[in-house]
Amino acid sequence: MYTVGILTISDKGSAGAREDESGRLLHTLVETLPGKVMVYKMIPDEVEAIREELVSFSDGWKSDLVLTTGGTGISLRDVTPEATQSVIDYLIPGLGEIMRMEGYKKNPRAVISRAIGGVRGRTLIVNFPGSPRAVRENFEILLPVLPHAIDKMKGSVEDCG
Amino acid sequence: MYTVGILTISDKGSAGAREDESGRLLHTLVETLPGKVMVYKMIPDEVEAIREELVSFSDGWKSDLVLTTGGTGISLRDVTPEATQSVIDYLIPGLGEIMRMEGYKKNPRAVISRAIGGVRGRTLIVNFPGSPRAVRENFEILLPVLPHAIDKMKGSVEDCG
Amino acid sequence: MYTVGILTISDKGSAGAREDESGRLLHTLVETLPGKVMVYKMIPDEVEAIREELVSFSDGWKSDLVLTTGGTGISLRDVTPEATQSVIDYLIPGLGEIMRMEGYKKNPRAVISRAIGGVRGRTLIVNFPGSPRAVRENFEILLPVLPHAIDKMKGSVEDCG
Repeated sequence: MYTVGILTISDKGSAGAREDESGRLLHTLVETLPGKVMVYKMIPDEVEAIREELVSFSDGWKSDLVLTTGGTGISLRDVTPEATQSVIDYLIPGLGEIMRMEGYKKNPRAVISRAIGGVRGRTLIVNFPGSPRAVRENFEILLPVLPHAIDKMKGSVEDCG
Repeated sequence: MYTVGILTISDKGSAGAREDESGRLLHTLVETLPGKVMVYKMIPDEVEAIREELVSFSDGWKSDLVLTTGGTGISLRDVTPEATQSVIDYLIPGLGEIMRMEGYKKNPRAVISRAIGGVRGRTLIVNFPGSPRAVRENFEILLPVLPHAIDKMKGSVEDCG
Repeated sequence: MYTVGILTISDKGSAGAREDESGRLLHTLVETLPGKVMVYKMIPDEVEAIREELVSFSDGWKSDLVLTTGGTGISLRDVTPEATQSVIDYLIPGLGEIMRMEGYKKNPRAVISRAIGGVRGRTLIVNFPGSPRAVRENFEILLPVLPHAIDKMKGSVEDCG
């Protein structure tokens, strides 16, 4: 059972103008890892707020996995990838690549997502796009990878401890 | 109707030793976006010249889309990706990835293209390889993506204006 | 006939606790390029040691191609991509991308490899994962690309010399 943090990044959602459908969906999807949500928040598309929560979910809550939804597009308000990049120790480029390349098959527009995944300490952080449909599709793409990635990341840290 | 700039980058072409077949092909292809070519130039494979034109096509001509052809390979004279990287505000990694991954299916050698795409202000800049065949193939790969990407990029800037 | 260097990166192997099955396999595989192994070493997962050998295999031995195996995963001891990145003149992003994207089809876990490929001087350097199975699969993915990439890289240097 993996411990999971879910961070919804949405100006409209955090202003109360939109239900957090994607965040709710992620709560359900992570059960299949199997995973247990320890911490959840919804915040606006602000680099500093995102950084702060990613650090808190990783270092404070010691989540095995942190999933974000929202802010991965190419508009000026989309800053999730930059915020994520700035807090990870190293990137796992294939996580973003495979979501885009597999996503393109169903919907070519998926390729403009700038979502990334990487490791901070003992926490795997992965960005998902904001729409529920994209969350579901991307989760399915990564489902065969996430448990293995967490095990490799954690196991290896213990090897070296 | 999107406004388009086309920049052909070729030592031989700009020295008059080769027809700009790829640039001409791009003029035809962009009509299908639908797009209208506002500015076109052919220049040698020089980082400073490329940077200067990309800035002029974006900030001066205010193109929605700038397409380059040439200089994306792995020889010492191929500097288009570096020049492009140095003028964009942020990268859209999936544009280069999908051209390489879809291209590999038809021609494995497509994977050594270092073409990138990204955003400068309100302009989407995308590199294509130099050969007419590669230009046509890559344009077809990106055709279902480009109008959406321009709309997202521009729409969002207006949202935040 | 291309000149090749093979560098096995393995803590266990270099401590004598494991046979270098992947290195031996690479010796056989490169014959099909066709290639001839000029230099081979096995070293631990240490950034400085990897950097030193990559520079020696490239600048000293003047290999056309240097293949590494091992250290491309996401554990703390996996530092091959970082060491490689630090000695190359420029990255060829499609080499890592295609190994991950084609690899995912057979084994989704392949996407967490952080392997990269790039150019140092007149040498093409490419990382492979550590397991013999992954070495074989990734070599097959890149086989239709490597000779062309070496020719382009070398030919172009000569063009400009």
